[in-house]
Amino acid sequence: MKIASPKGTRDFYPEDMSLQNRLFSVWRETALLFGFEEYEGPAFEHVELFTRKSGDEIVKQLYNFKDKSDRELALRPEITPTLARMIAAKGNSLKKPVKWFSIPRVFRYERMQRGRLREFFQFNLDIVGEASVSAEAEIVAASVQTLKGFGLSPADFRVCVNSRRLMKEMLMASGIAEARLDAAYAILDRRSKVEPGVLSEMYKEASFSENDIRAIEDIFSLTSLQAIRGRFAQSQGVDAAAKELEDFFGLIKNYGISECVIYDSSIVRGLAYYTGIVFEIFDTGKTLRAIAGGGRYDSLVALFDGEETPAVGFGMGDAVIAELLKEKGLIPSYTKQTKVYIVNFNKESLAPAIETAALLRSNRIETEFALKPQSPKKQMETAQAARYVLFVGGEEWDKGQIKIKDMKSGEEKTTCKNDILQHLVF
Amino acid sequence: MKIASPKGTRDFYPEDMSLQNRLFSVWRETALLFGFEEYEGPAFEHVELFTRKSGDEIVKQLYNFKDKSDRELALRPEITPTLARMIAAKGNSLKKPVKWFSIPRVFRYERMQRGRLREFFQFNLDIVGEASVSAEAEIVAASVQTLKGFGLSPADFRVCVNSRRLMKEMLMASGIAEARLDAAYAILDRRSKVEPGVLSEMYKEASFSENDIRAIEDIFSLTSLQAIRGRFAQSQGVDAAAKELEDFFGLIKNYGISECVIYDSSIVRGLAYYTGIVFEIFDTGKTLRAIAGGGRYDSLVALFDGEETPAVGFGMGDAVIAELLKEKGLIPSYTKQTKVYIVNFNKESLAPAIETAALLRSNRIETEFALKPQSPKKQMETAQAARYVLFVGGEEWDKGQIKIKDMKSGEEKTTCKNDILQHLVF
Repeated sequence: MKIASPKGTRDFYPEDMSLQNRLFSVWRETALLFGFEEYEGPAFEHVELFTRKSGDEIVKQLYNFKDKSDRELALRPEITPTLARMIAAKGNSLKKPVKWFSIPRVFRYERMQRGRLREFFQFNLDIVGEASVSAEAEIVAASVQTLKGFGLSPADFRVCVNSRRLMKEMLMASGIAEARLDAAYAILDRRSKVEPGVLSEMYKEASFSENDIRAIEDIFSLTSLQAIRGRFAQSQGVDAAAKELEDFFGLIKNYGISECVIYDSSIVRGLAYYTGIVFEIFDTGKTLRAIAGGGRYDSLVALFDGEETPAVGFGMGDAVIAELLKEKGLIPSYTKQTKVYIVNFNKESLAPAIETAALLRSNRIETEFALKPQSPKKQMETAQAARYVLFVGGEEWDKGQIKIKDMKSGEEKTTCKNDILQHLVF
Repeated sequence: MKIASPKGTRDFYPEDMSLQNRLFSVWRETALLFGFEEYEGPAFEHVELFTRKSGDEIVKQLYNFKDKSDRELALRPEITPTLARMIAAKGNSLKKPVKWFSIPRVFRYERMQRGRLREFFQFNLDIVGEASVSAEAEIVAASVQTLKGFGLSPADFRVCVNSRRLMKEMLMASGIAEARLDAAYAILDRRSKVEPGVLSEMYKEASFSENDIRAIEDIFSLTSLQAIRGRFAQSQGVDAAAKELEDFFGLIKNYGISECVIYDSSIVRGLAYYTGIVFEIFDTGKTLRAIAGGGRYDSLVALFDGEETPAVGFGMGDAVIAELLKEKGLIPSYTKQTKVYIVNFNKESLAPAIETAALLRSNRIETEFALKPQSPKKQMETAQAARYVLFVGGEEWDKGQIKIKDMKSGEEKTTCKNDILQHLVF
């Protein structure tokens, strides 16, 4: 009987893996380009690591279990709590700010839908220990460079930026109590994604008064920082938060990426732990879910017994970006990489094929041959993707010779086997 | 309160991750050199995938759990059952033989000891669909090249080879019943690792008779293929199995690696599923546990409802090889990679630093700068590892100039900022 792979997981056959490796290599190269260093953590953690950050509700979305010594563990749904734990563990011995990246595999027990999986890879960038908006700007610039690295143009996507701090100041200046802010954020995060009727229901369920609702909706009619400053001219808090966003956009201009980074009052981010600037990246036209998201979270490290530490982070899953790249035709087609293919056509050609392959491989040339003799015709199919095809064995081999076929020019020549390396030019 | 990482797991800080990436890149490069293609599977599978291969006993060593829909799942302790499942799923549409590799993270709930972890990475090479010993030889050659790729010399390690088929034929020719073979292999796998007294106990516990024990021990007094052939001259089965091993060693000679690949009658491999040639790699002197191991397993794919398919595989964990490389001083020390460091020394130098970094990064040059202005002296510490250090801002910047310090020669010069790329040679 066949056994299936678990629901929400993927098998990566070589052609699928080639796409994954493309994602990983652009992520890694971009992170290094910006001076981020790679880290990793365990695939599972004590459940408490996740509930302390996100509350007990998070357990619903976890693959959680007891190990054989009754430890309460869970597969990580994200790596940020691990990062905070690792930073807290090092205390002051770590020179701040740190710029770290990771490509963790993460696990979420979620209802299945397009672009959502229960197991996926996520690119994470974090700057920990820098309070100024230059950290946000550096992270956003790295995220833009990542998308460019895949061959996307700035016209293909938008980085939509808002500020939790600005929202907080506006909401409080409008009479919303500080204790109600998290409830408001949770609704506002869904605001542009649901029908107006559903939105009303959500407000009611969360017990917001008619006055509250009017005040909140009034804020969302302001679509520019200028309009916000006009409306809240009396509030020093709004002024300072707007100034911070303006400083951020000033740095974005220095990075030369203003054309694809915009202010967007609808960006809230669902998670309670963001404290400052937040952002999400969408394909232009928003036909897909968010490609990536992130923001400032200054209180997390302290939650794990570290010192209060400013931090900015960013995460990009592998599913949505892969969809977008497929749509844009930016995924290179897969062919098995072989620089040299050696034809093994009879019992006597295996030994020469092995000896030749050993020579080439020890010179770092990717080389393949048929492990069992086959007709040359059958092998030429496999050999099509190679740069050179070699024929070894028979009388030629006994005379110390090898026949080379250049698969680019179609040219064939016979050479002394000791000189073979000189004839293989890549 | 601090939360620790789970027992048997590791936090990879950047310096640790740099070692992991060194392992991964040598593994990956060698696999590609030999024409293997990369695949991956889910981190967890239905428990049955593992019990069908290894029996219910394996559950003791698994991180197994029920998901929220009561599916019985387990973190993978190895990737071979996933490989067999994936091959079986494709049936005949997959052109054989396939040569695949993977670097899965695997999980084992084991008692902790030196070089053993509950979560580790394992390099896997498999050739599926080739019955001849050229598959074993290709896998062994790739494993030798892997160790050479780390900078080890053939004198540093031994690939110790035996044959399950040969053992089976010898044991049966000596009167051991076929039904007792797996019990015998389990003991023989421990034979060279335990005291003689313990060995006697194991024989007794498994109900082997005095005659059986004498016959088995007699076989182990034969340490060469020649001696074996002499002792079992009457047995056609032993003859054929010995011939197969000799063919294998013939190919090993063609690969030019005879000096580090030897026959070793003590190699058995614990797992029941091996059917032919088996091997383990040890550091010379065997001061560490096995670095790697593998062998032929012709019956596994059929177990997952695929056709009977010959297969040879190999696995190398990250822990023992890392220990050996540390012992030999073959682990490069870690320094953060930065090609260019830009000094950001006051409020006015941030914008020029960002503009310059953006230019260099878009030209694929790894570039760093301080996100907050700092004294140049403090930054020169950080800048030590860079190839070039740039000074931007102030009067020079206003005049369109940048000062460059070449950290190799110590030379300093001032150049027009538009020409900066020409002056950075790597």
